[in-house]
Amino acid sequence: MNYLCASGKRAEFMFEIQSRDKETRARTGILKTGHGDIPTPIFMPVGTAGTVKGILQKDLIDDIDARIILGNTYHLYLRPGTEILKASGGLHKFMSWPRPVLTDSGGYQVFSLTGNRKLTPGGAIFKSHIDGSKHVFSPENTIDIQRIIGGDIIMTLDECTPFPCDYNYARKSVELTHQWLDRAVSRFRMTEPLWGFPQYLFPIVQGSTFDDLRKKSAEKIASVSLEGNAIGGLSVGEPAEEMYRIVEIVNEILPEDKPRYLMGVGTPANILEAIERGIDMFDCVMPTRNGRNGMLFTGEGIINIRNRKWTDDFSPIDPEGSSSVSTYYSRAYLRHLVISGEILGAQIASIHNLSFYMWLVAEAGKQIEAGNFRQWKNRMVKKVSERL
Amino acid sequence: MNYLCASGKRAEFMFEIQSRDKETRARTGILKTGHGDIPTPIFMPVGTAGTVKGILQKDLIDDIDARIILGNTYHLYLRPGTEILKASGGLHKFMSWPRPVLTDSGGYQVFSLTGNRKLTPGGAIFKSHIDGSKHVFSPENTIDIQRIIGGDIIMTLDECTPFPCDYNYARKSVELTHQWLDRAVSRFRMTEPLWGFPQYLFPIVQGSTFDDLRKKSAEKIASVSLEGNAIGGLSVGEPAEEMYRIVEIVNEILPEDKPRYLMGVGTPANILEAIERGIDMFDCVMPTRNGRNGMLFTGEGIINIRNRKWTDDFSPIDPEGSSSVSTYYSRAYLRHLVISGEILGAQIASIHNLSFYMWLVAEAGKQIEAGNFRQWKNRMVKKVSERL
Repeated sequence: MNYLCASGKRAEFMFEIQSRDKETRARTGILKTGHGDIPTPIFMPVGTAGTVKGILQKDLIDDIDARIILGNTYHLYLRPGTEILKASGGLHKFMSWPRPVLTDSGGYQVFSLTGNRKLTPGGAIFKSHIDGSKHVFSPENTIDIQRIIGGDIIMTLDECTPFPCDYNYARKSVELTHQWLDRAVSRFRMTEPLWGFPQYLFPIVQGSTFDDLRKKSAEKIASVSLEGNAIGGLSVGEPAEEMYRIVEIVNEILPEDKPRYLMGVGTPANILEAIERGIDMFDCVMPTRNGRNGMLFTGEGIINIRNRKWTDDFSPIDPEGSSSVSTYYSRAYLRHLVISGEILGAQIASIHNLSFYMWLVAEAGKQIEAGNFRQWKNRMVKKVSERL
Repeated sequence: MNYLCASGKRAEFMFEIQSRDKETRARTGILKTGHGDIPTPIFMPVGTAGTVKGILQKDLIDDIDARIILGNTYHLYLRPGTEILKASGGLHKFMSWPRPVLTDSGGYQVFSLTGNRKLTPGGAIFKSHIDGSKHVFSPENTIDIQRIIGGDIIMTLDECTPFPCDYNYARKSVELTHQWLDRAVSRFRMTEPLWGFPQYLFPIVQGSTFDDLRKKSAEKIASVSLEGNAIGGLSVGEPAEEMYRIVEIVNEILPEDKPRYLMGVGTPANILEAIERGIDMFDCVMPTRNGRNGMLFTGEGIINIRNRKWTDDFSPIDPEGSSSVSTYYSRAYLRHLVISGEILGAQIASIHNLSFYMWLVAEAGKQIEAGNFRQWKNRMVKKVSERL
């Protein structure tokens, strides 16, 4: 189970499948990184600028048990910047985070800066949202930047098309993404990790909601034969059924023996449906961002804690919740904090929601291993989508 | 060591002096409450609206070891309101806080609402800063409200005069505060605690920076013979030397055998100077509010973490800091968080600063007991006032 790294050193395969569901494409596995093993399916809390908003690293580890977090290359490149990240010895050291990190390529954020960015074959020219300064992201320099940040898993630069998207635009965009992929892989193979642990590069399938483009893209991505593969450009406004259909089409083509990462997804129901279709990795701002606004995810459904009905509900936030805050604090107290704009409301909701997401993917894994996944999933999808 | 409570039940004295400094008025003691003993001198973190901003209760206990926190009657009365606080069983239960609480009377906040409040002999009429609704605080209803909130220590309604203050205004104000005191004590003696543990009422010395008014006020306050006594109306803009002078004058009169609480004070140096002059209890928003803005207190001096010089300082925030965050995170990382407006920056700075304040008062106590207080204090006052 060894292969030759770009660096010439031998390393183990990064992914090992542990069990497969008999009725669906769902599976469990272990992702091996220089910062420890990650069980899959896994959810990765988003730590945009080197912090999962509102959560101390010790709580991410001890309370939430986040196994890997995500960093955004766009934000980290602008602030603190590569000079500071390099001087600190990479993001892990900078933010005192001992567990694995995945960084995106910055593409998604840059393409969200409508009006402040220009796409060229060479890359993307964009203006900083902080000070308006001009920058360029290319397939090559986003590899260089990610070498400095030092994610255990890094991503190739892609264009994430909006929804809805004109077919011709999507076709040209996916071609550009594929050209960029070749350039990124070439740069990746020419360079070395900087911080003494391996970095794995994942390419990204694009193609909007067009089946033929998605198939073509998945074939291209599979042919590059990197350590894992990602699906981007979903959960950008298309109906959930479209998303599931595209995931099915793409996962027919992406190799079975490599981890599959569905970027930016999603609701608890989205995650369960995608696990059923063979996805192993997820990230999404929903548990933290929606948490800060008072939306709580539980195994019984969604709570909008701003709702007047919780004013005098002194029962725990979530009696079944696995984090320390879920049972320590009452709904009435959390409502008071959120209504009052208190920071602590954002903290409690974020810890609770991330713990719920971690529980959800871990429980999915257990159900897969026990052979009960589909039945459990069908029941859970209904429950987690209800409004309490 | 027993006395007859208002309720007719016998209770121990709430304060026991443990040791006295030979060279100064400094002393150590134990404050006994229904939620546990509090060593003095003590600093009380401010938990305005039922939360010490940005800090989980478990961190207040395990990391900061806050022995008592302060709640603001004004804020709690407006939100969540007495109905919810009553239904929840008081503030301790509402906010899941097992340790002692002190509540102020709301006077200070109401008198800060310049233009939105009117003073009458009956009390203060004010408009809510939240929705503009009209309310009245009287000496009687602020006792009733504090019975519902359920602080272990509660305060009488007073007028906190601004600085500078016209002599005649200050004279009339202190007379009104004394009338209110009699009415508050009468209401306190007519009513019972609601939540099964004792509540102690502290009166407040006023009189601005006028020695004769302060003496008169201290004599009045001492004559009421409550369980502890407070000094208000300081740290409102007067020079520090004025504050120390007034504390000396007042503490000549306030009884030795009862705890003395200097309200709203202050910097680390202020606290050490006041301990030297016989103060036992302190509260201040400075460690949390200034922390949120990037000001850090350490035993070597003050750090403005926004300063460019910390950009690439990867050493711990405070190598001697007693909280888990002080040594876990680097200055460069904390600077990045604060500059980026990340919530985590406020959290880390608040935990660090409160831990430093808790260390400072605990260390003062140790030095008093060891007979080294004055020497240590003189050295520390210089160090904690420096800018790093």
